[in-house]
Amino acid sequence: MSSGVGQVVENKQVRLKRYVKGFPVESDLYVTSDNTIELRVSDGSPEGTTLVKNLYLSCDPYMRFRMGESQIGEFPSFTIDAPIDGFGVAKVLDSKNPDFKVGDLIWGRIKWEEYSLITKPEGFFKIQHTDVPLSYYTGILGMPGITAYFGFNEVCSPKEGEYVFISAASGAVGQLVGQFAKLKGCYVVGSAGSKEKVELLKTKFGFDEAFNYKEEHDLVAALKRFFPEGIDIYFENVGGKMLDAVLLNMRVQGRIAVCGMISQYNLDHPEPVYNLMSVIYNRVRIEGFISFDYFSRYSEFVDAVLPYIREKKINYVEDVVEGLDSGPAALVGLFSGRNIGKQVVAVAHE
Amino acid sequence: MSSGVGQVVENKQVRLKRYVKGFPVESDLYVTSDNTIELRVSDGSPEGTTLVKNLYLSCDPYMRFRMGESQIGEFPSFTIDAPIDGFGVAKVLDSKNPDFKVGDLIWGRIKWEEYSLITKPEGFFKIQHTDVPLSYYTGILGMPGITAYFGFNEVCSPKEGEYVFISAASGAVGQLVGQFAKLKGCYVVGSAGSKEKVELLKTKFGFDEAFNYKEEHDLVAALKRFFPEGIDIYFENVGGKMLDAVLLNMRVQGRIAVCGMISQYNLDHPEPVYNLMSVIYNRVRIEGFISFDYFSRYSEFVDAVLPYIREKKINYVEDVVEGLDSGPAALVGLFSGRNIGKQVVAVAHE
Repeated sequence: MSSGVGQVVENKQVRLKRYVKGFPVESDLYVTSDNTIELRVSDGSPEGTTLVKNLYLSCDPYMRFRMGESQIGEFPSFTIDAPIDGFGVAKVLDSKNPDFKVGDLIWGRIKWEEYSLITKPEGFFKIQHTDVPLSYYTGILGMPGITAYFGFNEVCSPKEGEYVFISAASGAVGQLVGQFAKLKGCYVVGSAGSKEKVELLKTKFGFDEAFNYKEEHDLVAALKRFFPEGIDIYFENVGGKMLDAVLLNMRVQGRIAVCGMISQYNLDHPEPVYNLMSVIYNRVRIEGFISFDYFSRYSEFVDAVLPYIREKKINYVEDVVEGLDSGPAALVGLFSGRNIGKQVVAVAHE
Repeated sequence: MSSGVGQVVENKQVRLKRYVKGFPVESDLYVTSDNTIELRVSDGSPEGTTLVKNLYLSCDPYMRFRMGESQIGEFPSFTIDAPIDGFGVAKVLDSKNPDFKVGDLIWGRIKWEEYSLITKPEGFFKIQHTDVPLSYYTGILGMPGITAYFGFNEVCSPKEGEYVFISAASGAVGQLVGQFAKLKGCYVVGSAGSKEKVELLKTKFGFDEAFNYKEEHDLVAALKRFFPEGIDIYFENVGGKMLDAVLLNMRVQGRIAVCGMISQYNLDHPEPVYNLMSVIYNRVRIEGFISFDYFSRYSEFVDAVLPYIREKKINYVEDVVEGLDSGPAALVGLFSGRNIGKQVVAVAHE
């Protein structure tokens, strides 16, 4: 057993205070230490039970669905006054699971707390490669990476030389899609919400062009400027007005992979989309997907992406805040675009 | 040469009077006999030139695009004061085309006139099977049939037992999609715009259920009534409010094949669609397609569908009006749902 195992310690948690309507605010969540945990798996625990120390927590837009009261698709609501959960990286402190030894690092769905007792270990991946930052397993080597990799390479069916547009392009997923598209030989343009993010797209991620959507009063015209020949592939992260403008700029046989629509998540009523007739004229395919459907292909994904990281062919920018106390602001900041790159909460570094 | 060849005769035509805005009306077109044609291919005509007598003309919703002033996708506008054109069946009267003999029957894109001199014969199919009504080559064995067959079997990726919804279900395409879906072992519901059409769906075409959308004030609720488990496949012919209601009723991994959006063609501004977030939650694929992309597979299609017709496993209902004089009313009637089944104009029967 590692040192400290068996102790009873405070276990700080981030909990949901109330179901969110509209834009989430920090005070929809609260941080509390009114809870303790024994740092061992007790003798009577079922086989598979694992005690972990949580290291890095992932802030992802889909979590907004779970902060609302009504179940949306396969996203069950969080429970009021219980810790929220999401993807994260953790270290095994004690284990009745033959697959996980003390000291192993794993990633999967964990609660926003310092320590967690995992009773259903099926959804967890053991981290095999630790020569890259561990936080990467919340991003480029975790759920957002899977989203970007399969969303682009499978849902978008890309071909060399095609014209690719990505919204929310500096985010956890967008920055990767753009780099995968460049590796594929595509022409890549991204949109983001600040000058700093636009610079990042062009300098750090190698996008051909990028623009600040907040500075464009006519998105249809902006897209025509960057895509005089039209768009073959749109990787959709925002929805609403941007989607409507894209539809008027699609090429024949174009594809729209719908990863998210973050501009819509906090609205009481979604924004209208008017230009769907383009789907007929241009034979466009619009396809929604969820990364979970590709989790079974995780090892194929790691084999493909890890060399890019090691050879520095792909960059990954994270926005890491320190400590669970910073968690609520980090999570709700996603929806105002506060983060630059992948938003991570570091609970502990080891 | 057939009898009459070489004569100069009147050649009645249906011409466009003005570009259409909003709903087309009969007076947007006019019928005239101020034109003559010599019933032979003159000696100096280029190889391939074919003189035909037009028999059956197809009225199809896409023709509305061509009645407008601005080019929409790959649908060029008709020319003012020139005959309109569309798909149709014709008989060869004279030919400098080695593929087409006098007396041959062909279908393809022909002008709305009694006789046509075809100078580009590449797009025409020779009719090989005449044991079925010739008018079928404007419908079940023509463009609408190709649309229904490939649109359903390829774009929708159907599986036995799936829940299928079809709008404009008694139309030229919808009635076939429903029957193909039944042959595939699906549960099939259709919507249409009159009691008579709804009856036709249930009795003649074997739909499991059908409803009159004009009698439903809440389309979302109506669809929930017919699809308590949700919709796997939506064959989209109408767009607008129906699409919005369908989106809230889609099942996970559902597919929407977008064949047309007839409810939108005559509006100055398309209706809004609000519920596209369903595409993410439910991983829905929305795919537009155009039958022209499948014309190269026509013989495969005929081999599959002809036996169904001969064995009476598929019914096909046509609404045939007589004579070019009836053409304008028949064509514009599509947009008010006047037709029951496939709208055809019989210029001549042989």
